[in-house]
Amino acid sequence: MPREITAFSNPLVKYARELRDKKHRRGARQFMAEGLRILTEARDTGRLPRILFYAAGNADHPLVHALSIDVEMAGGESIHTTPDILSKLSGKDNPQAVVGVFDEFDRTLADLDRGTSGIWLVAERLRDPGNLGTILRTADAVGAGGLILIGECVDPFSVEAVRASMGALFTIPVVRSEWAPFLDWLREGPGQLVGLSLDTEHDYRAARYETPTFLLTGNEAQGMPADYAAACDLLVKIPMLGKADSLNAAVATAVMAYEVLAQQRGGSSAT
Amino acid sequence: MPREITAFSNPLVKYARELRDKKHRRGARQFMAEGLRILTEARDTGRLPRILFYAAGNADHPLVHALSIDVEMAGGESIHTTPDILSKLSGKDNPQAVVGVFDEFDRTLADLDRGTSGIWLVAERLRDPGNLGTILRTADAVGAGGLILIGECVDPFSVEAVRASMGALFTIPVVRSEWAPFLDWLREGPGQLVGLSLDTEHDYRAARYETPTFLLTGNEAQGMPADYAAACDLLVKIPMLGKADSLNAAVATAVMAYEVLAQQRGGSSAT
Repeated sequence: MPREITAFSNPLVKYARELRDKKHRRGARQFMAEGLRILTEARDTGRLPRILFYAAGNADHPLVHALSIDVEMAGGESIHTTPDILSKLSGKDNPQAVVGVFDEFDRTLADLDRGTSGIWLVAERLRDPGNLGTILRTADAVGAGGLILIGECVDPFSVEAVRASMGALFTIPVVRSEWAPFLDWLREGPGQLVGLSLDTEHDYRAARYETPTFLLTGNEAQGMPADYAAACDLLVKIPMLGKADSLNAAVATAVMAYEVLAQQRGGSSAT
Repeated sequence: MPREITAFSNPLVKYARELRDKKHRRGARQFMAEGLRILTEARDTGRLPRILFYAAGNADHPLVHALSIDVEMAGGESIHTTPDILSKLSGKDNPQAVVGVFDEFDRTLADLDRGTSGIWLVAERLRDPGNLGTILRTADAVGAGGLILIGECVDPFSVEAVRASMGALFTIPVVRSEWAPFLDWLREGPGQLVGLSLDTEHDYRAARYETPTFLLTGNEAQGMPADYAAACDLLVKIPMLGKADSLNAAVATAVMAYEVLAQQRGGSSAT
């Protein structure tokens, strides 16, 4: 049976709250995700929270009820609590109806099957959790096979990344790797490595993308190292007509990914 | 001459710090922008801060020095201070070298000349400041004529929006309007109103965009009201191949804007 917790000092509340902090998350290897829709989608991919918090007033909502039963059947804890505690957990004034604590899941390059999709996203030293989550959301939208994070990237299990992914963290495989093993893995099979660069004359619309395409986006401030760029099969640029010299990293990735998608779906590009 | 402030309790520090808060910003009609590059770009568009804060250690930097002189020549205050105070002002652990307090600037629809660009961005009830700033950054990149904000949108002068815009707040005209006067203004001249929608069969790559195109993006959670959609000349959708039904609003706007740009630059679309 679900139990009630109404005290901020409760150890489970404290534990979940601390998962907002990277250090605690790393030790616990668990993370937090919010929202009925996202938790329901997670369940549909076979992932149930170890701990489910929901506002007592939502106990009769059929989706909350179903989720609560599933969590308990799987040996997890289902906890009804106050809106204030949900606010504290989510860090938002208007919290979602449910908050779940999930085990982290890590995949390796060996888990990826490049035959499953024509588009793969690769990001190196991504530092903004919102960008990471937004790139995952885009990965879902273009039917990408996965997101490969190279080097010191922000944590995909951070609250901000999970939130910005809008559930895609559960549906899109995320692999963390260093550059050298990634490149070794990539060259074991087919795949065109396409880097987004400011230092090339190849317009992204004029280029021809092979299947599968691996789209590499560099660090938000610095772009990618020269040796990464040199290892690419193709460097392309997105035209910049204004004063600034670059786009937001998640935006640039999406503009590229949709061009690749359009070409792979059978059209030619514009130019 | 620049003066030194090292006390957190100094009224100017307190004043600038409070501009992070919307209520104070509204009263003061001033806002904060950070970063040497952004402040230099602002200066190049004729906008100087009323108050310039910089870390004492940066006083000899030629750009900081030049900015400081220009601010004082224009009757503003130039203040050298501590990294701690800059951190407090910017809310970041690693603050930028300079923080400026600027007068807000508001434009009206009457200030816009639709002949100056083939692309105009329109967003209604945008609620995320990062999205607003990112859309401004994209507007700069595609050479858009401006961004028109419809209804209750997040404040373009918020710290997060200014930061995400990477300086585009100073270079791209932003107009706040209600829907009815916007539509009246739009219909006084040429312009195709294109709405991004989930409820249409028109693929965004198959559509033909006229010049100028006004791209309308709806609220992040709800999209646009039915009567707004009905007033559009064309509704288009971006294909969604995954589990989610929508893209991040700034991402969707950018994918659309780059398609319009590619067509207007002389290519045909892919499909």
